[in-house]
Amino acid sequence: MAIKLHGTVGSPATFRAFAALYEKDLDVDFIPVKLGVNENKSPQFLARNPFGQVPVFEHGDLQLFESRAITKYVAEAYADKGTSLLLSRDPRKSAIQTVWMEVESQKFDPATSKLTWELFFKPLFGMTTDEAVVAEFEKKLEPVLDVYEKRLTECKYLGGDSFSLADLHHLPNTNILIGTKVKSQFDARPHVSAWASDILSRPAWAKVTSMLPK
Amino acid sequence: MAIKLHGTVGSPATFRAFAALYEKDLDVDFIPVKLGVNENKSPQFLARNPFGQVPVFEHGDLQLFESRAITKYVAEAYADKGTSLLLSRDPRKSAIQTVWMEVESQKFDPATSKLTWELFFKPLFGMTTDEAVVAEFEKKLEPVLDVYEKRLTECKYLGGDSFSLADLHHLPNTNILIGTKVKSQFDARPHVSAWASDILSRPAWAKVTSMLPK
Ligand SMILES: N[C@@H](CCC(=O)N[C@@H](CS)C(=O)NCC(=O)O)C(=O)O
Ligand SMILES: N[C@@H](CCC(=O)N[C@@H](CS)C(=O)NCC(=O)O)C(=O)O
Repeated sequence: MAIKLHGTVGSPATFRAFAALYEKDLDVDFIPVKLGVNENKSPQFLARNPFGQVPVFEHGDLQLFESRAITKYVAEAYADKGTSLLLSRDPRKSAIQTVWMEVESQKFDPATSKLTWELFFKPLFGMTTDEAVVAEFEKKLEPVLDVYEKRLTECKYLGGDSFSLADLHHLPNTNILIGTKVKSQFDARPHVSAWASDILSRPAWAKVTSMLPK
Repeated sequence: MAIKLHGTVGSPATFRAFAALYEKDLDVDFIPVKLGVNENKSPQFLARNPFGQVPVFEHGDLQLFESRAITKYVAEAYADKGTSLLLSRDPRKSAIQTVWMEVESQKFDPATSKLTWELFFKPLFGMTTDEAVVAEFEKKLEPVLDVYEKRLTECKYLGGDSFSLADLHHLPNTNILIGTKVKSQFDARPHVSAWASDILSRPAWAKVTSMLPK
């Protein structure tokens, strides 16, 4: 029984789920969902995810949505396969990883999702970037990356000494933003910049981005 | 060695952490942090949480910030004490709880935090509510509560058949919003309304809100 991922090439949330699946060396049947023709709002799709968004993970009768719920399930259910995406089973140590996963979700994602929308997706869809919004969210990202710079002088990865979900969740938006003017914010911080290069060069991530049209 | 919670009475994030600690019947030393005089931006506090926000959990040499990282740690580290806040140790079942915890964080919180700010905190601080922002985020909350209404016809709680962190994380903002005009959105949905009354009437939550000035 194969794992299926319903999603869309280029969607940050879909790519987040794929990153975890590929770090675990899992075979995945990719089921493309065409957002452009609202396939994600069909009754069939809404039965999988009532919010009508990609990705959806399916394995037998288990269906999951929300990319970070999918990555956490994959990390736990396949704990002994591929890359260990959980730093520890000791609650005190895993709590530190959880803190940095929360930081991604509560601080990094809100700022960077606005920036990827304005600077990458809007131009792609022929829409006009709102520079005021860009300025507002560039300003919100700065202090977040300052905290990361300090954290990454203390340990090599955000969650601790090795790569984990706390880093992986950052991949999709980081990958997009280093192709925009926001790259300068990464470049200005040596540890953030080295960390970004490191995680973006992981083979599993290269496998994810190879799905993008050339 | 006592558990310490650095926080602020009335702060939703502080109250989220307290809700978990009290469901677990834990004794907690409350260390008040005065946001009004920027105690949270002092070098001592920034060493606890580089984002300068409450709450911070401290137990011996373990320090955690981000309210949802604190509640998850408390739920796991004290799994056998008080209310079980995790529905299952089976990854397939706990994944469903995680989905609904992600929904709170990704859908409910962004809308309701804007609404509590505009409708409750701004008036409290003598600032003027921006009705355009209220209208925008009321509109974002509607479809989220529609999904909740459907989910709560299928099971009694968001994560499954019993109360868990997936419900608990909703308490602070729900408690504030039912004291505003947004209450009508809850009232319009019978299952959401019954669920909200149920979780708000939990003794642990009453203990949290008893900290508020009378
Ligand atoms: N918090 C969700 C976000 C999912 C999301 O925003 N998906 C986008 C594509 S990246 C989508 O389906 N957009 C279409 C829509 O919202 O109608 C997750 O992490 O899975
Ligand atoms: N995502 C954080 C949010 C924490 C937060 O917003 N704390 C507020 C009080 S509820 C705070 O410390 N505000 C002061 C500030 O941001 O300077 C959490 O869940 O802990």
